[in-house]
Amino acid sequence: MPTPARHEVRRVRQRARYDAASIHAILDAAWLCHVAFAADEGQPFVIPMLYARDGDTLLLHGSIASRLMRTLGDGVRASIAVTLLDGLVFARSHFHHSANYRSVVAFGRAMPVTDADEKAAALARFVDAMIPGRAAESRAADRNELAATMLLRFTIEDASAKVREGGPKDDPADAALPVWSGVVPMALAYGEPIVADDATPGVDAPASARRLVG
Amino acid sequence: MPTPARHEVRRVRQRARYDAASIHAILDAAWLCHVAFAADEGQPFVIPMLYARDGDTLLLHGSIASRLMRTLGDGVRASIAVTLLDGLVFARSHFHHSANYRSVVAFGRAMPVTDADEKAAALARFVDAMIPGRAAESRAADRNELAATMLLRFTIEDASAKVREGGPKDDPADAALPVWSGVVPMALAYGEPIVADDATPGVDAPASARRLVG
Repeated sequence: MPTPARHEVRRVRQRARYDAASIHAILDAAWLCHVAFAADEGQPFVIPMLYARDGDTLLLHGSIASRLMRTLGDGVRASIAVTLLDGLVFARSHFHHSANYRSVVAFGRAMPVTDADEKAAALARFVDAMIPGRAAESRAADRNELAATMLLRFTIEDASAKVREGGPKDDPADAALPVWSGVVPMALAYGEPIVADDATPGVDAPASARRLVG
Repeated sequence: MPTPARHEVRRVRQRARYDAASIHAILDAAWLCHVAFAADEGQPFVIPMLYARDGDTLLLHGSIASRLMRTLGDGVRASIAVTLLDGLVFARSHFHHSANYRSVVAFGRAMPVTDADEKAAALARFVDAMIPGRAAESRAADRNELAATMLLRFTIEDASAKVREGGPKDDPADAALPVWSGVVPMALAYGEPIVADDATPGVDAPASARRLVG
């Protein structure tokens, strides 16, 4: 059997998806990723980062003073995972318990973006990825803030999505066990806005916050 | 300045915590991690995995047929991140938007666990990490299921926690801007249990599911 390509899903292949629409839909539903690469002479690092998708690239940002950001921006080989949890799968046996999820694992390399307009647009995009509509409600980055921001563009060279959905797949021999089976759905939920101690007086919670709370 | 150790937090150091109690509390509040290591001649991989903490180790499991699991179980250098999102931080400027979170990044190596009793206990622990109390409600793993499971024990050699909490840190020059600032809390929330199509008739949703929904 030939060695599969790095992005080919090797286990439970019926859960795998490789089309851009499936991959983009998952990437657009989240804004937290985990970025892995080697630094310090081969030591693997994995770090949580915010991201925003731009076509077949992922924008990442951090401080210009971050050594890990600079290593990543040197174009080393990297892998990025995005995982959304959708439910807890209750089976009749320990073995068949599972989680419903949507995940993407992407492979590629990151390069710095230095153009000020592109950096400003990216910062607005990060804000809107986390909080849709928020960029228009708040002040855009100024020259000093842009200078303090390291922006990287990670080009997705290949990627796969993996999705588990639906109920448990119990062992037929367990069919009569008096054990409940099913799914408890799960999702990130938002609470009521908490105004800052130093907030500008007389300003109500904005539309972007109210839409999240629903 | 000496090179910091791999687990030392280099940026925004006031957010860093290195004590075992802080690290364990975060690890015990989650069950999804992202594991990074190199395979295929140095290519970094990051994959989402379930875990359960056992002292200063993290138990990981997968199929014995998984090539990535076998590579990880060879004791290659690995890094594991756990990230919990607690809130969206609304600032007056794009630049100061942020997320509240608790995260741990750990470094170490994984080794296979082959003892059947230890594997069975670990499977129960995975179930209870995701769904507290569920292991006692469902059937323990049998000999064939244990044989199909690859169990790894990742020893945490060093780790750091990073926590951001509280409101935005706006630029003082923005104090009078008519822009709302504050935090929208966020957390994973559970929905009503959905019974499986092939569920055993007459079995109600168990205590473990009802506790999650609250």
